[in-house]
Amino acid sequence: MSDGFNHEVFLSPFTWRYGSDEMRRLWSLAHTRRLWRRIWVALARVQRQAGLVTAEQVADLEAHQDQIDIERALTLEEDLKHDLMAEVHTYAEQAKIGGAIIHLGATSMDVEDNADALRLRECLTLTAQRVADVLLALAERIEQEAGTVCMAFTHLQPAEPTTIGYRLAFTAQDFLADYERLRQLAASVKGKGFKGAVGTSASYHELLRGTNLSTREFEAALMGALGLEAFEVTHQTYPRRQDWDILNALAGVAMTAYKFAFDLRLLQSPPIGEWREPFGSRQIGSSAMPFKRNPIHAENVDSLARYVAALPQIAWENAAHHLLERTLDDSGNRRVILPEAFLAVDEILLRTLRLVRGLQIERAAVERNLRQYGVFAATERVLMEAARRGGNRQALHEIIRQHSLTAWAAVQSDQPNPLADLIAQDEHIRAYLSAEEAQALLDASAHVGDAPARARALAERIRAAIALAPR
Amino acid sequence: MSDGFNHEVFLSPFTWRYGSDEMRRLWSLAHTRRLWRRIWVALARVQRQAGLVTAEQVADLEAHQDQIDIERALTLEEDLKHDLMAEVHTYAEQAKIGGAIIHLGATSMDVEDNADALRLRECLTLTAQRVADVLLALAERIEQEAGTVCMAFTHLQPAEPTTIGYRLAFTAQDFLADYERLRQLAASVKGKGFKGAVGTSASYHELLRGTNLSTREFEAALMGALGLEAFEVTHQTYPRRQDWDILNALAGVAMTAYKFAFDLRLLQSPPIGEWREPFGSRQIGSSAMPFKRNPIHAENVDSLARYVAALPQIAWENAAHHLLERTLDDSGNRRVILPEAFLAVDEILLRTLRLVRGLQIERAAVERNLRQYGVFAATERVLMEAARRGGNRQALHEIIRQHSLTAWAAVQSDQPNPLADLIAQDEHIRAYLSAEEAQALLDASAHVGDAPARARALAERIRAAIALAPR
Amino acid sequence: MSDGFNHEVFLSPFTWRYGSDEMRRLWSLAHTRRLWRRIWVALARVQRQAGLVTAEQVADLEAHQDQIDIERALTLEEDLKHDLMAEVHTYAEQAKIGGAIIHLGATSMDVEDNADALRLRECLTLTAQRVADVLLALAERIEQEAGTVCMAFTHLQPAEPTTIGYRLAFTAQDFLADYERLRQLAASVKGKGFKGAVGTSASYHELLRGTNLSTREFEAALMGALGLEAFEVTHQTYPRRQDWDILNALAGVAMTAYKFAFDLRLLQSPPIGEWREPFGSRQIGSSAMPFKRNPIHAENVDSLARYVAALPQIAWENAAHHLLERTLDDSGNRRVILPEAFLAVDEILLRTLRLVRGLQIERAAVERNLRQYGVFAATERVLMEAARRGGNRQALHEIIRQHSLTAWAAVQSDQPNPLADLIAQDEHIRAYLSAEEAQALLDASAHVGDAPARARALAERIRAAIALAPR
Amino acid sequence: MSDGFNHEVFLSPFTWRYGSDEMRRLWSLAHTRRLWRRIWVALARVQRQAGLVTAEQVADLEAHQDQIDIERALTLEEDLKHDLMAEVHTYAEQAKIGGAIIHLGATSMDVEDNADALRLRECLTLTAQRVADVLLALAERIEQEAGTVCMAFTHLQPAEPTTIGYRLAFTAQDFLADYERLRQLAASVKGKGFKGAVGTSASYHELLRGTNLSTREFEAALMGALGLEAFEVTHQTYPRRQDWDILNALAGVAMTAYKFAFDLRLLQSPPIGEWREPFGSRQIGSSAMPFKRNPIHAENVDSLARYVAALPQIAWENAAHHLLERTLDDSGNRRVILPEAFLAVDEILLRTLRLVRGLQIERAAVERNLRQYGVFAATERVLMEAARRGGNRQALHEIIRQHSLTAWAAVQSDQPNPLADLIAQDEHIRAYLSAEEAQALLDASAHVGDAPARARALAERIRAAIALAPR
Repeated sequence: MSDGFNHEVFLSPFTWRYGSDEMRRLWSLAHTRRLWRRIWVALARVQRQAGLVTAEQVADLEAHQDQIDIERALTLEEDLKHDLMAEVHTYAEQAKIGGAIIHLGATSMDVEDNADALRLRECLTLTAQRVADVLLALAERIEQEAGTVCMAFTHLQPAEPTTIGYRLAFTAQDFLADYERLRQLAASVKGKGFKGAVGTSASYHELLRGTNLSTREFEAALMGALGLEAFEVTHQTYPRRQDWDILNALAGVAMTAYKFAFDLRLLQSPPIGEWREPFGSRQIGSSAMPFKRNPIHAENVDSLARYVAALPQIAWENAAHHLLERTLDDSGNRRVILPEAFLAVDEILLRTLRLVRGLQIERAAVERNLRQYGVFAATERVLMEAARRGGNRQALHEIIRQHSLTAWAAVQSDQPNPLADLIAQDEHIRAYLSAEEAQALLDASAHVGDAPARARALAERIRAAIALAPR
Repeated sequence: MSDGFNHEVFLSPFTWRYGSDEMRRLWSLAHTRRLWRRIWVALARVQRQAGLVTAEQVADLEAHQDQIDIERALTLEEDLKHDLMAEVHTYAEQAKIGGAIIHLGATSMDVEDNADALRLRECLTLTAQRVADVLLALAERIEQEAGTVCMAFTHLQPAEPTTIGYRLAFTAQDFLADYERLRQLAASVKGKGFKGAVGTSASYHELLRGTNLSTREFEAALMGALGLEAFEVTHQTYPRRQDWDILNALAGVAMTAYKFAFDLRLLQSPPIGEWREPFGSRQIGSSAMPFKRNPIHAENVDSLARYVAALPQIAWENAAHHLLERTLDDSGNRRVILPEAFLAVDEILLRTLRLVRGLQIERAAVERNLRQYGVFAATERVLMEAARRGGNRQALHEIIRQHSLTAWAAVQSDQPNPLADLIAQDEHIRAYLSAEEAQALLDASAHVGDAPARARALAERIRAAIALAPR
Repeated sequence: MSDGFNHEVFLSPFTWRYGSDEMRRLWSLAHTRRLWRRIWVALARVQRQAGLVTAEQVADLEAHQDQIDIERALTLEEDLKHDLMAEVHTYAEQAKIGGAIIHLGATSMDVEDNADALRLRECLTLTAQRVADVLLALAERIEQEAGTVCMAFTHLQPAEPTTIGYRLAFTAQDFLADYERLRQLAASVKGKGFKGAVGTSASYHELLRGTNLSTREFEAALMGALGLEAFEVTHQTYPRRQDWDILNALAGVAMTAYKFAFDLRLLQSPPIGEWREPFGSRQIGSSAMPFKRNPIHAENVDSLARYVAALPQIAWENAAHHLLERTLDDSGNRRVILPEAFLAVDEILLRTLRLVRGLQIERAAVERNLRQYGVFAATERVLMEAARRGGNRQALHEIIRQHSLTAWAAVQSDQPNPLADLIAQDEHIRAYLSAEEAQALLDASAHVGDAPARARALAERIRAAIALAPR
Repeated sequence: MSDGFNHEVFLSPFTWRYGSDEMRRLWSLAHTRRLWRRIWVALARVQRQAGLVTAEQVADLEAHQDQIDIERALTLEEDLKHDLMAEVHTYAEQAKIGGAIIHLGATSMDVEDNADALRLRECLTLTAQRVADVLLALAERIEQEAGTVCMAFTHLQPAEPTTIGYRLAFTAQDFLADYERLRQLAASVKGKGFKGAVGTSASYHELLRGTNLSTREFEAALMGALGLEAFEVTHQTYPRRQDWDILNALAGVAMTAYKFAFDLRLLQSPPIGEWREPFGSRQIGSSAMPFKRNPIHAENVDSLARYVAALPQIAWENAAHHLLERTLDDSGNRRVILPEAFLAVDEILLRTLRLVRGLQIERAAVERNLRQYGVFAATERVLMEAARRGGNRQALHEIIRQHSLTAWAAVQSDQPNPLADLIAQDEHIRAYLSAEEAQALLDASAHVGDAPARARALAERIRAAIALAPR
């Protein structure tokens, strides 16, 4: 097999369109082989301690460790029908002295499964970094907009005012939860250890008989060299619930990004028109429809997030059906769902970062909506204050209601909202409140409660959380 | 156990809040017992033909067929640990003469599984009727609004004009597909037939030995009496893919309703403001926020639809894991997912019917949006026509672009859209088009292509499809 | 970008490991371009009828239709940021005469979406053929094994006998349903037609003004040329429920294959040991564990099937959220789920075909299990017959129960099952039945009811269904 | 509405069939009302501190707190169309003095959402206790069976020996992860706090103006009284990702139980026959098929687990679509998925507990399988040892392979496995190993590595983890 694939065959979008090169390399066949060789070298070193192999053999393996030759390995695999054994042979052809002791006494799954765990940790770490980038960008925007008042929408209906920073803080709070989960998983991801065909270590007992190492010490030395903890109990593989945990963490990131991107799509709809995706300068001005800017990045984020959301279910089934000491019905789909989940989330985060950094706030639209809708909610404050000063609550309520209907009719006909003036000038209201007092109460922008403070507090918490984390 | 359950325990919303009484009865324990007894009577009648039982026995069973006594049956079940056998005993206590021959020679699953198929057909038929009701309501609205021009939105951005009828026709086309699928399933739902413990009919061979009926004739007579086709091949139960097919059909209905309801939620958002849920007269006027009407029915439709969408996956797993001649790992969840899917869809359709019938079109908002956004898209027609008459395409494009930017700035500041006037009065445009010509080309409402005709054609197709169907 | 991708990056298993080259080509970028060009040529031909373009232009486009140049197109796309427009330019560079009229008056989605429909039909047809291959192989095995008696298992417990052919017929009946669904979809898949940006055909009205073609005639001519029906009503794209229908059909195939493969995995477990995957001759004899043959192909089928089962949910969400006249949040994940679903099912079917054709029946194990377990179920026939001849049912039942316990203890200690002899020699039984009569009744293999006949009938139905189908 | 529902309507199996009464009560309407009243009393007490209400009012509310009257509340709801307001009125009718200040200044969602959080914590705590019960039962069985050697199966093929305790430890390790996750969630579940309609606390700012409490202090006092932390940032509700986290934790429990139950179903299949569900004494002996005991509890566990596994996806969609400051499309399905997930898991855990406690080990079958299959794997040890002592590896391998084939043929014909004898007596082997040495190496039961030690270590870890936890 030649080593090139072109556009005459199916190429996954994750091969070239979505995700970073960095993540794509982690999921390459070549990287798999690098991880295997790293484990074989570690194995040989520990076997050297046990007196099972020689220093020369170890040194030879070390010398050839980086010499990945996929083409040769795939050629050998055609005959051997076993990818790991083909790599053993490829490596052995290169390392004439140490070749014979590669994989000595090991079970394939001891190498493959620990390699999987190492890779998953690399991917979790990279993903956590990307979330950190998004969080820092969010923190900055939150602080900038902590006090920028805008209408909040419940049921897609304008409700009371909030601030843009506080709305962003909601997203950031979710991303922070994602970040902490990813970091926790990166710190706690475990390998199978070295426990043989069914997890009992029986074959290593044979191997180590007469040496100075127990199976426990042997495993501890090896896992120490790999910097990876092992599960206490495994069967042929590590418990597949770990895959499910990881996919859930990725689905969590996807969920947070999905909500943010969907909100952006709504807010970018011209009748609301408050937010916009950053727009390339080349793209500007090409159209006779100046408002028409499709939120294609946000749509893409949502599209990929939807894909990611479906994957934990598959991992659940894999773990649930890992019959007795394992079956292989996880293998085929793990080749798809693990890389594609990480690559999809990679793309999601890279796009989200650009969206957050470049998010355009259309201040005029924000203010227009606040003007149009904010005052309605604020009438309750006028009512409360006038009642407190002795007004008849029911009568005042009816007056306000009538003005509200009039005002809404004006708004519907593209007129500016007259409600504040109608109320401030109403004689029944003026019996209790001056026009200035009424206008002040009706100023929506003054009534956002703790939103700015809470937004800022969250931004600080983000910076603290990320500062603490070793990168 | 007393026969009442109250609000001190968990009561599913499908027991009292969601779904119709009609559908709720079909999923009652009492109805299950009625179906079982119907099958036992049919069984006795055919066994009478075969000379295995007497006319008196059959007549006795017929006389007591409707005497369902759940309380007694549940008491007996406590001892017997078998719900079907408990019902046999309950029935036998009532039918002193025929009691001994109830269930003669049958396997539990022959009774239970055919009863399930009968019930599923009843539910499919009822659901299809509800979809038909929605479709007829839609057809009426489509015809009313076939020519009502409004802005179409792609990417939530105003694009070109369409008509409200045509937009509704999209939903109706999907519901029509749902309707046809439901009717097809109702017509083709099959029972297990009478094939014994593993589907071979071996026990009926024993039973019928020496009678005038073969097992094939026996099954045909029985299924004929029940009006139900049987699968040719079964194991202990009918193939569970049938459940999956049915749940998919329900998920299809849920999908169509979901999109319609989501669109409604968007269109009811005041900045767009074109559609509204019907609003009870008691609810009106209570608020100082006259625009604020939460689309709670549409939200509920979407919420329940989301539940229904998750259920086919469970049925897939049931069918896929029906190991060898069957296992029982479908049983527990089928008690939940089948009734709840039908009841959720029942509620969805009842609400959708009210939404369609009572859908309020806010004509002023429709026209405002058309005015604000429609003219931008229409500038392309001016460009094309002016170019056709000899204008320099590129120069004209730039002129239009400048006017568009000016117009959009005005719209953003709550001004009426000046674009049509700017273009119609522009001297470079007037070199090729009169102001009247330009205004005509810029009138969005004149450019909805086939939308009205296609909408009407679909309404007709709906009426024809439903008229054809036997109800 | 060079046109080769190698194993230093992520390559989907569907790029090289799973699925056929034939299916892989259908999902290549190159094939997409071929479909687009086919549509552009059809478009030009119909525009020629309408007098909008010249015969020379059409001929030039035809001459260069097959000259796909992905490398050039991708280079252009880097600037244009639009894949379809990049292809227009690539094609136009080749076709100097017709280049200017490529895509004349069309909307991108009119080309892309109809191309999608054409490809989906090709894939459905190929998949249906693969199912047909499996069905014919099954029909042959069913006929061979229609009368081969084996134990049936319910709850994974030996129950009554059935036949291997009948068990296979269950799988075949499900595949036949899949086949019919796939063929029906292949016959009914619809394109968007040519309806412009929001489905109203407004832009084609402009284009065709003054020609001899109405928009309806224009669309009909074009779709006729493509051999594809169009939806009556669309928005910017065809209704995305079509994707969901197709993915459900594929999930159905996956479900059927999953059950078959899972059954095989169970039956290949040595303690049961009745079925085996075909085993390459090179693989044989390498092991000291002659019974140990991992059912890796069946495991792989199940693994990929589990992936396919998760995908319809994503398509449901896409269709349900296709807000108003469409949003783009389907686009990103459709690039993944459509090709990967077809390629996974392709692999599943190719493996299933090999499994069915090469399925090894371990006759000795089949008979051993029948001997060990079949006789227990058969004791009921002895009981019934002895009772019919005047025996005391209760007393005889107890006698049989005692013998059964004795026999089971023997079986548990690796002894042959003595039950038939114990019963046939029992004096209380002999009072009613001769030893020969008892042995005959206890012969499980004589009691498989209609299983052989029904199995054969199904095989015939398969042949008839496939013979009827045009390939 | 009368307060009883009977079997003439749909009654969810979770109303009467599945789950404990304890869990069922937590999800009753009555319990909801109790939680609301608890919050209202807490609210009044804090408002008393702020000087907004009187001590008499608070005392009156406390006096009537427990007087839940669902019937009255539902009657009022018919008019009010608002369940929380109906409860306010019901309570107010009872508390003549304090009635007027119930819910003073609060938003419905402040009461409902915090009540939800309180209930979720109660349910998480109860579920964690149930997992702890299962874990302690497992620990006991693990210790009992830590050294009981049995065959391990990979790919459902006998592989090497392991111990029953070690196999159980795998399940226990997963349940321990579930337990820790549940306890962590129970400890960290957060409420919305008291933040008003859009999460800004603006309305509480008004309410508290002029009092001695800031909104922060007010919220802190209230949440302190409820013993519940609040999210720092919320919109109208707490972030719905919390529901998703909780459902994932439940799906985790379901996954662990699923695998255990599926393993049990496999091991209970008579040809393997090693494990059995506990069997009621009344059930024993009724059958002439003494081996036939359907694992109905394990099947039920798997069935319900499959349902639970599908629910997190719904919660994901709810959280992802909680548009802007919230929409209500979570509400309808949350009434279903939250209670049903907890009740299903409750049933799963209660059954799992019975399965673990009553798990029957069929020692004869365990030993038979070990005898039949264990020796094959052990031949490798003979080979290694003989080679170590100078034997020709390749020649010896062929000898062993021949004996293995002979032995397997014997096993297939229901004969005891002769392999150990064949090898021990083989003269080529005896050149290097005495018969005793060979037999010793071939004794599978001596080769289970660390399995017993690791199993015991896990049992200890379980006891320690649970002893630490406050109950």
